[in-house]
Amino acid sequence: MSTAGQVIRCKAAVAWEAGKPLSVEEIEVAPPQKNEVRVKIHFTSLCHTDVYFWEAKGQNPLFPRILGHEAGGVVESVGEGVTDVQPGDHVLPIFTGECKECPHCLSEASNMCDLLRINTERGGMLHDGQTRFSKDGKPIYHFLGTSTFSEYTVVHVGQVAKINPEAPLDKVCVLSCGMSTGFGATVNVAKPKKGGSVAVFGLGAVGLAAAEGARVCEASRIIGIDLNPNRFEEAKKFGCTEFVNPKDHNKPVQEVISEMTGGGVDCSIECTGSTQAMVSAFECVHDGWGVAVLVGVPSRDDSFKTHPIHFLKERTLRGTFFGNYKPLSDIPGVVEKYMKRELELDKFITHSVPFLDINKAFEYMLRGEGLRCMIRMDA
Amino acid sequence: MSTAGQVIRCKAAVAWEAGKPLSVEEIEVAPPQKNEVRVKIHFTSLCHTDVYFWEAKGQNPLFPRILGHEAGGVVESVGEGVTDVQPGDHVLPIFTGECKECPHCLSEASNMCDLLRINTERGGMLHDGQTRFSKDGKPIYHFLGTSTFSEYTVVHVGQVAKINPEAPLDKVCVLSCGMSTGFGATVNVAKPKKGGSVAVFGLGAVGLAAAEGARVCEASRIIGIDLNPNRFEEAKKFGCTEFVNPKDHNKPVQEVISEMTGGGVDCSIECTGSTQAMVSAFECVHDGWGVAVLVGVPSRDDSFKTHPIHFLKERTLRGTFFGNYKPLSDIPGVVEKYMKRELELDKFITHSVPFLDINKAFEYMLRGEGLRCMIRMDA
Ligand SMILES: NC(=O)c1ccc[n+]([C@@H]2O[C@H](COP(=O)([O-])OP(=O)(O)OC[C@H]3O[C@@H](n4cnc5c(N)ncnc54)[C@H](O)[C@@H]3O)[C@@H](O)[C@H]2O)c1
Ligand SMILES: NC(=O)c1ccc[n+]([C@@H]2O[C@H](COP(=O)([O-])OP(=O)(O)OC[C@H]3O[C@@H](n4cnc5c(N)ncnc54)[C@H](O)[C@@H]3O)[C@@H](O)[C@H]2O)c1
Ligand SMILES: [Zn+2]
Ligand SMILES: [Zn+2]
Ligand SMILES: [Zn+2]
Ligand SMILES: [Zn+2]
Repeated sequence: MSTAGQVIRCKAAVAWEAGKPLSVEEIEVAPPQKNEVRVKIHFTSLCHTDVYFWEAKGQNPLFPRILGHEAGGVVESVGEGVTDVQPGDHVLPIFTGECKECPHCLSEASNMCDLLRINTERGGMLHDGQTRFSKDGKPIYHFLGTSTFSEYTVVHVGQVAKINPEAPLDKVCVLSCGMSTGFGATVNVAKPKKGGSVAVFGLGAVGLAAAEGARVCEASRIIGIDLNPNRFEEAKKFGCTEFVNPKDHNKPVQEVISEMTGGGVDCSIECTGSTQAMVSAFECVHDGWGVAVLVGVPSRDDSFKTHPIHFLKERTLRGTFFGNYKPLSDIPGVVEKYMKRELELDKFITHSVPFLDINKAFEYMLRGEGLRCMIRMDA
Repeated sequence: MSTAGQVIRCKAAVAWEAGKPLSVEEIEVAPPQKNEVRVKIHFTSLCHTDVYFWEAKGQNPLFPRILGHEAGGVVESVGEGVTDVQPGDHVLPIFTGECKECPHCLSEASNMCDLLRINTERGGMLHDGQTRFSKDGKPIYHFLGTSTFSEYTVVHVGQVAKINPEAPLDKVCVLSCGMSTGFGATVNVAKPKKGGSVAVFGLGAVGLAAAEGARVCEASRIIGIDLNPNRFEEAKKFGCTEFVNPKDHNKPVQEVISEMTGGGVDCSIECTGSTQAMVSAFECVHDGWGVAVLVGVPSRDDSFKTHPIHFLKERTLRGTFFGNYKPLSDIPGVVEKYMKRELELDKFITHSVPFLDINKAFEYMLRGEGLRCMIRMDA
């Protein structure tokens, strides 16, 4: 019997309060409205951004809320006006969307859609500002328009990438956020040449995806930089050839890298969120052609400071958001890269838990253990 | 009778002391040594960099010195090992060179030759550290390896661009520095698309050459920004369509530009040397695709400061040196652009004086009068 047009009762992990364990309980999910899609989530993984908004430090707290934005699922039903996907399609919900009409969507360079770019403050759907989630009539807020910590969720059609139905959702799921961000920062923005040298600052999941990008681009040297020496063993699997811990040196790490490489690396990718690392990542690239790419999200009052002469010596500094991928147009192609074994994803998934144990995923992340924890909705 | 191999006695404008008028007097010019070329200068123009080093504020003073680096001339004789040019060739001496062998010369991206990149401190020739200029046996220092304020000068062969002999030296002369720097910053680095919007900070000769580049790229809006309102009238000839004087507004000029353009310009080029203008030039470009290019030379203790979120929103910041042109490989082609009327130069030349009146050129520059003053060596 079709559930289309009906309210679905299903399990979701609700964050009732900042910092309190999520509670898996039954909720109601309303049918999709205009330009919306209801998706059955099969797998979802935990990203650091979920944890930030669950902790709600420095953000406006918005609770109760259903978090989650790295996921893979299947379309259950579609709302009015939806023609791009239909029930049964395999999709990745993505935290930033593509309207295909605004100047950003029409520009080759940008993926920062005016209509659907990431909005961390919004708790309702774009169409009517209302939530599609409720518990005994009380609304529960959405998160990034995805809210994938639920068996069913409602997403704007501009935020679902339709992918190859053969692709294993428990693997390609990680492409909806962190892996695409880091991998794209390298292959779409830094663009190292074959044989070039690359420095990656921060060896979390995003940084290791950036290193994976450098490996795929056939960089000859991939220098990993992290304050946490435990990251180094793992990083070898992602192509890192050398490691530098800034704490081991009594001069700025950019000088150490410059000496190691005879004047600087060809490109660097910063995946830490620390402004100190951002400055080092910029100043460690070679004059004449060096490109530094910023990925980490800084704090509100941070400031990036350098001597302008570093720019004049023909260095380039750019930032990127979601690896400069257009979520709907490009991510299906990245999934194909995985299917053709041009890109490895399995090594990012270091843990797996059934949905009921979702709080364990938070514990792993908080302890800095592993990279991605896969949450199995059916289990 | 050939002068090759002989010491030539000729007139030069010698800077004997910082800030004192140049003295045009007879000096001796030794023959070119290994990899050197002796050039008869026909025309030379005055650039701000000559004035900086003449004033010697904040630099190590090096006197007596023959200044000058924007010029056009004809090869008189060549030293050992020189095969790229021969007597009679028309050339532009250039303050930064090209060895054609180092990693920078071999890189498509860079023009910062390891051997011959600009060196403001060096007073002798690369070959033996000695000067080729003397007055009654007392050596006179070189400047930037060009020293074009002399009827004859000696230059490294990697610092002379051989150009079309039909090109009028009293016009293309300005391509040896300022015009190429500004024009190249736009066409080689910022690369505005047809119909795009461009902001130019600083409407001196370099900034107006940047505006000329934007005009040639068919930008639809060219917004000129200067603190000096007198610059605005002239700037119209260089394609500027709108003007903003930061002093006329009580909010940062980047906000003014952002409002004028619905979110920012497609690209901006900073040609002031002021770090405040550098920050404004960066922050006024559109998110998603905006590119800002720094050209102005900052002071030693300056610092560029911005919030890193401006980078994350997919803005790019780059610096350039000599408009990213490789002096020998590229400048002959820019001369051809002038010959084909694809690029206008005549409008940059607002004054002209005979060699004996060279100090007048300094006066015009110090008063901010006009753009380039052509100095006629034969007159
Ligand atoms: N731009 C985007 O679209 C986007 C998307 C996702 C994540 N991010 C950001 O990317 C960053 C990395 O995410 P993650 O999930 O990999 O985080 P993570 O916490 O797993 O990894 C960050 C790593 O950086 C290291 N680090 C911190 N400060 C450092 C310093 N000064 N020098 C060297 N290493 C340092 C830490 O030890 C850690 O190993 C975060 O700031 C996150 O917010 C950005
Ligand atoms: N990167 C290179 O290869 C290269 C080569 C040549 C010159 N330059 C540099 O380019 C800059 C421009 O050279 P120029 O010969 O045109 O100089 P200029 O003095 O003729 O012109 C500079 C203009 O900038 C304006 N200005 C100063 N501060 C400003 C501010 N905060 N906002 C707006 N306008 C401001 C001034 O009023 C002036 O009109 C200088 O810093 C020079 O050293 C760089
Ligand atoms: Zn859009
Ligand atoms: Zn994420
Ligand atoms: Zn070279
Ligand atoms: Zn100059």
